[in-house]
Amino acid sequence: MPYYRIPEMDPLSPAEGVEIRVIHGERMTLAFFRVSAGARVPEHAHPHEQIGTVIRGVMDLAVGDETFTVRTGDAYHVPGGVPHSGYCGEETELVEAFCPVREDMR
Amino acid sequence: MPYYRIPEMDPLSPAEGVEIRVIHGERMTLAFFRVSAGARVPEHAHPHEQIGTVIRGVMDLAVGDETFTVRTGDAYHVPGGVPHSGYCGEETELVEAFCPVREDMR
Repeated sequence: MPYYRIPEMDPLSPAEGVEIRVIHGERMTLAFFRVSAGARVPEHAHPHEQIGTVIRGVMDLAVGDETFTVRTGDAYHVPGGVPHSGYCGEETELVEAFCPVREDMR
Repeated sequence: MPYYRIPEMDPLSPAEGVEIRVIHGERMTLAFFRVSAGARVPEHAHPHEQIGTVIRGVMDLAVGDETFTVRTGDAYHVPGGVPHSGYCGEETELVEAFCPVREDMR
């Protein structure tokens, strides 16, 4: 059954204070991030296109040479290949879609 | 700047009580649904793969010949081409990713 209880899934933890629970489809991945207060997603880049949104909290998001603060109800687009990073001053939940599938998150 | 304040965007309204605000990337669409209490998303199908999650509320979701109830923190996958529909007994917010881009939502 194509149905998931996200909080019950085992997380990946690519950086201290960052948990990611992921659903992989055939052509895309939906990833659920929980970032602790004071935690960072270090700068990285991937060929996958990324569209994300803040479910709860706040993140200072750097995309290429721009930095902006995204809050609950905000969304952002990161084109494939563009370096980006994040810092969350409080506990924050994000949902991010990636295309194609993030094989590195299996 | 690839940055959006979702509540300030103009919605599409494909059915009574259903508002959708959308961000289109190059290869996918992220759609923000607000469904009023008692509103339905009528049965429909599209070739796009779909992965969704409930941000707030509850939805009775029928996918193919299965029906299940999804609540805050749940997620679901709808393969391309499979008929599906939803009913929300209370005001509900969903985020759904589609691949490829939903040209019909431009």
